[in-house]
Amino acid sequence: MSSPIDFYFDFSSPYAYCASTRIDALGAEFGREVRWHPILLGPVFKQMGVAPLIEVPIKGRYALHDFARTAALFDIPYAHPERFPVATIGAARAMLWIDARHGAAKAREFAHAVFHAYFAAGQDISQPEIVLAAARSAGLDAEEVAQGMQQEDIKAALKSGIEAATARGVFGAPFIFVDDEPFWGFDRFDYIRKWLLRRGQGAAA
Amino acid sequence: MSSPIDFYFDFSSPYAYCASTRIDALGAEFGREVRWHPILLGPVFKQMGVAPLIEVPIKGRYALHDFARTAALFDIPYAHPERFPVATIGAARAMLWIDARHGAAKAREFAHAVFHAYFAAGQDISQPEIVLAAARSAGLDAEEVAQGMQQEDIKAALKSGIEAATARGVFGAPFIFVDDEPFWGFDRFDYIRKWLLRRGQGAAA
Repeated sequence: MSSPIDFYFDFSSPYAYCASTRIDALGAEFGREVRWHPILLGPVFKQMGVAPLIEVPIKGRYALHDFARTAALFDIPYAHPERFPVATIGAARAMLWIDARHGAAKAREFAHAVFHAYFAAGQDISQPEIVLAAARSAGLDAEEVAQGMQQEDIKAALKSGIEAATARGVFGAPFIFVDDEPFWGFDRFDYIRKWLLRRGQGAAA
Repeated sequence: MSSPIDFYFDFSSPYAYCASTRIDALGAEFGREVRWHPILLGPVFKQMGVAPLIEVPIKGRYALHDFARTAALFDIPYAHPERFPVATIGAARAMLWIDARHGAAKAREFAHAVFHAYFAAGQDISQPEIVLAAARSAGLDAEEVAQGMQQEDIKAALKSGIEAATARGVFGAPFIFVDDEPFWGFDRFDYIRKWLLRRGQGAAA
């Protein structure tokens, strides 16, 4: 088994949402597990001194169009959220707790539910009750999750996870590492595939 | 014949260079002509209040890596220029004059030579002699081009071409319009293909 693929995302990123629907299949194509890492882009953008994408003049308008188009081209259900972007610290902490307590598969199931709630079902995932509904839909005890996501060690884990991500060069989402090769964006999936194919053939990438 | 594809680029953009090697083939796949529009990104970035890509912290370092990797993955010769980015106003004006005087095919031949000089042959295309050498390699009279690119109407044409581009929503390079649908980036070629295929089938994009 080759080393796992690392997948960094913010629950508020449309391209990360698209990536979340495809990343495990991509990993499976090449016999790679995928490790999911929820992060927050706010602190990352602050460190870089850049504005959130949709706040950039001209480019922001294009981005809004491209979000929906990208989803449509890949047959991914998409309804641009009324409030966008929103705080995802609760969802990220909940995922980390679920991962620690119930394992990666359950955490992933929860993550899919959160992404779907925000980008397909028109729900505001900055609201704790929406995060807990996602947990419930993944078969988890909402009470337990509500308590878990407040734990100090979970808060610390998210903080240190974001620090580790930026130290590794993460500056956006989705951000993917394959054997330390960095790929930014859902539009890099074909590159990842090409890169893995060449690597498999022993060619230089 | 369907309406032409519009291809906007700055000669100093690595992704535009990559796009320049593929755009005509893409157009041909769908029976579309491609109109090449040299622009300058400097004024565009100023209008948006953003920094050139490689000056953005963290992201800039990734970009440098991604330029070379993108070229390698698509088997495009690439050597990152020692001076980067450089002023491309001379090359852009020369191309507009060649287009006006000798037609689009000759202008394109010149454009390929300029891109190659900068991104494959290690030549500084901000220097007039390099621009003229590219003209010569396209079978043009260098003297004539040197005079042509200084003409006031050519200078005005570049200025108004950039204004028209930004008015249309261009904020980076390569920037491509297919039937007024905007696509930004070499990494959107697959989207263009998917979009044209769906359009061909009459499906909503």
